[in-house]
Amino acid sequence: MVSGWRSNLSTAASRLESSPVELAYRLVRTSDTRLINMASGNPDPKIVPVQELSEIAMEVLGALGYESLVYPDAGGLDDLKKEIRLYMAREGVSIPKNYEISVTSGAQHAFKLMSELLGGGDVHVICESPTFVETLAPLKLHSHVHGIPFSSGRLDLGRMEEALKALDPGSSVIYLIPTCHNPTGITMSEDDRHEVLELAEKYDALVIEDEPYRAFSEAQPPALVSLDNGSRVIYVGTLSKVLAPGLRIGWIAAPPEIASAVSMLENYDITTSTLTQHIALESFRHGLVDSTASALRAHYLRKRHALEDSLSENMPPNVNWEPNGCGLFQLVSATGFDAEQHLIDAIRRGVIYVPARRFFVPEGDIGSIRLSLGPPSNEEIEEGTRILAGIISEHSSASSRGAA
Amino acid sequence: MVSGWRSNLSTAASRLESSPVELAYRLVRTSDTRLINMASGNPDPKIVPVQELSEIAMEVLGALGYESLVYPDAGGLDDLKKEIRLYMAREGVSIPKNYEISVTSGAQHAFKLMSELLGGGDVHVICESPTFVETLAPLKLHSHVHGIPFSSGRLDLGRMEEALKALDPGSSVIYLIPTCHNPTGITMSEDDRHEVLELAEKYDALVIEDEPYRAFSEAQPPALVSLDNGSRVIYVGTLSKVLAPGLRIGWIAAPPEIASAVSMLENYDITTSTLTQHIALESFRHGLVDSTASALRAHYLRKRHALEDSLSENMPPNVNWEPNGCGLFQLVSATGFDAEQHLIDAIRRGVIYVPARRFFVPEGDIGSIRLSLGPPSNEEIEEGTRILAGIISEHSSASSRGAA
Repeated sequence: MVSGWRSNLSTAASRLESSPVELAYRLVRTSDTRLINMASGNPDPKIVPVQELSEIAMEVLGALGYESLVYPDAGGLDDLKKEIRLYMAREGVSIPKNYEISVTSGAQHAFKLMSELLGGGDVHVICESPTFVETLAPLKLHSHVHGIPFSSGRLDLGRMEEALKALDPGSSVIYLIPTCHNPTGITMSEDDRHEVLELAEKYDALVIEDEPYRAFSEAQPPALVSLDNGSRVIYVGTLSKVLAPGLRIGWIAAPPEIASAVSMLENYDITTSTLTQHIALESFRHGLVDSTASALRAHYLRKRHALEDSLSENMPPNVNWEPNGCGLFQLVSATGFDAEQHLIDAIRRGVIYVPARRFFVPEGDIGSIRLSLGPPSNEEIEEGTRILAGIISEHSSASSRGAA
Repeated sequence: MVSGWRSNLSTAASRLESSPVELAYRLVRTSDTRLINMASGNPDPKIVPVQELSEIAMEVLGALGYESLVYPDAGGLDDLKKEIRLYMAREGVSIPKNYEISVTSGAQHAFKLMSELLGGGDVHVICESPTFVETLAPLKLHSHVHGIPFSSGRLDLGRMEEALKALDPGSSVIYLIPTCHNPTGITMSEDDRHEVLELAEKYDALVIEDEPYRAFSEAQPPALVSLDNGSRVIYVGTLSKVLAPGLRIGWIAAPPEIASAVSMLENYDITTSTLTQHIALESFRHGLVDSTASALRAHYLRKRHALEDSLSENMPPNVNWEPNGCGLFQLVSATGFDAEQHLIDAIRRGVIYVPARRFFVPEGDIGSIRLSLGPPSNEEIEEGTRILAGIISEHSSASSRGAA
């Protein structure tokens, strides 16, 4: 008889998926040679304010001492929540007055907690396809997931309505990365944002807005949470891209009943470091978050131009990609090429990327590749792209080599 | 129709329990006056090596810079896992060779992850009653929980066998804090440890050994994991009591299939700060964990003597408690007294404790109180005990006042 804890463990383990992003991290770490890292979502080393964070850490430990090293409160430091609210306002994200902030151990933690709270019954998550494979994972664990494709650089909202219509009202959660989408770099227009909110209202869906990249571009359309009149939008933010992912500080802004459930559930894992919360708090107070956010815009834009120029120059005709994205990533798709199979060839020649097949819902395009603008320098971006172009040219099926 | 995400959210929220420990933390934080804090599980401010941790943080940020601020690997830093293994060995905890370490964001995170992996089906958790209410919470969320009472300072293993016998073989997980138990302070004898392992073998139960307090006393009996021949014991350790809880660094040591499932599940929340992992790593390498662990033994023993003396001197005859415990806590029980109802009186008079009714499975003794040796000084312990004795005397029912 296979029953009880062994059976549960093996069922749970079999439902867990390894992440292609985590795999790439592992390959980078265990590689004998230095790789051009076009895989990792870590921000550019030139952007992370190491010296300033180090001074702030000193200040926190010096001024607070023991208080910065005690157990954290579930839901986060009150002063940090206040600073997050002010920061969101400065970034142009207004939230309903009754919304509450709950600090999480990064945005991923917020998705994990919300997937536990919202899923488990008959909840359906409607998401972009492709979407970020790692935030998708916890949602898949507790809900049915439906992917909505992009068409000519826009999310197909007609398909979204079809999906919502086919489900019971009140049973859907729309999960979106509307600004500088990961992995496509696409930003949803203001009109489309209004339409999403109308659909959410019509079909009684909750909306989760995942926004790590608002700071990456000026003149973004308003956040969904700012356009919403019905307290249907849960906003998830993070300091991972504008300050440092190793601090593990993110947050949700949500209606009180949701924020309070998240905070209560946080008392079941108690994961968010008190020390890094205080470092984040003082980084806000010293203006370090704002100054880093301003600095990164021009910086990543230059890197994106380097990447786009290099893709234009080097990629064979069977490679497609959309220009003018924003955020940390660029999706490219090579017809007749298997990005998972040839990852090892790329690594051998000194470059690593994330195969993006599993970013699609259902899993899709085997020729798709997510390229990161984070770790590599401009020179490395150019060299990496050239190497990758060579591998794609070599390994694409003969029939596809002439295709556009 | 109440269906879908709203219904799931309200079901999930209704199943979440607020913690009496978290409530006490909140009351301490929001109190207008300074309280004698006999509630919190934070270690003594005199024991947390703030200055050394501050120097190590500087060193980490100076030497590693960016690398200490990137995304963490699921399962933790390899070097930290090695140091944890060596530390366990120095503390006398030998683990099977094939066991693997998985770093977690504190021990509580380990329990949350394991409850997700092991529960959900028809798993039954057998635990001490009372046990630590906060580790109990995630186990209750995913499993059926059965409490085994203590009798004359020993866990009633006859009752444990009855409970195991009544369940299907292979469906039970035995969760224990065998060394310096929270909240009773009791340490299980070596003979009883052998008997627990025999029961686990006989009824095919998994054992989870929660051991935050091994360092608190010399000459502890061997850990269950060290006595076990069958790879049935998952060991959970933490730096919260011997270094600083605000770092959120704990670990599990487990058979490879369990450690690997825990690491995979960690990639679903990605909560463990890279920075605090490096601080923990360097704290091991600098001998700071060992030196703090040695220092705390005599320190907490003096505090325990102060508490026991003060309890003996001041408590009315309707208060029972077991002397000679170890760890951070002392359980006292006042017949005819309601510890929850009169918490507010205690706070008004300047002392806070944790009512322990909800540490029992099922919820039990309303007169039970958990007292902490962590934050208060010896003088505060004495004053706090006197105040508490006064409140108990005043508010105990007339019939109980003469009772022993």
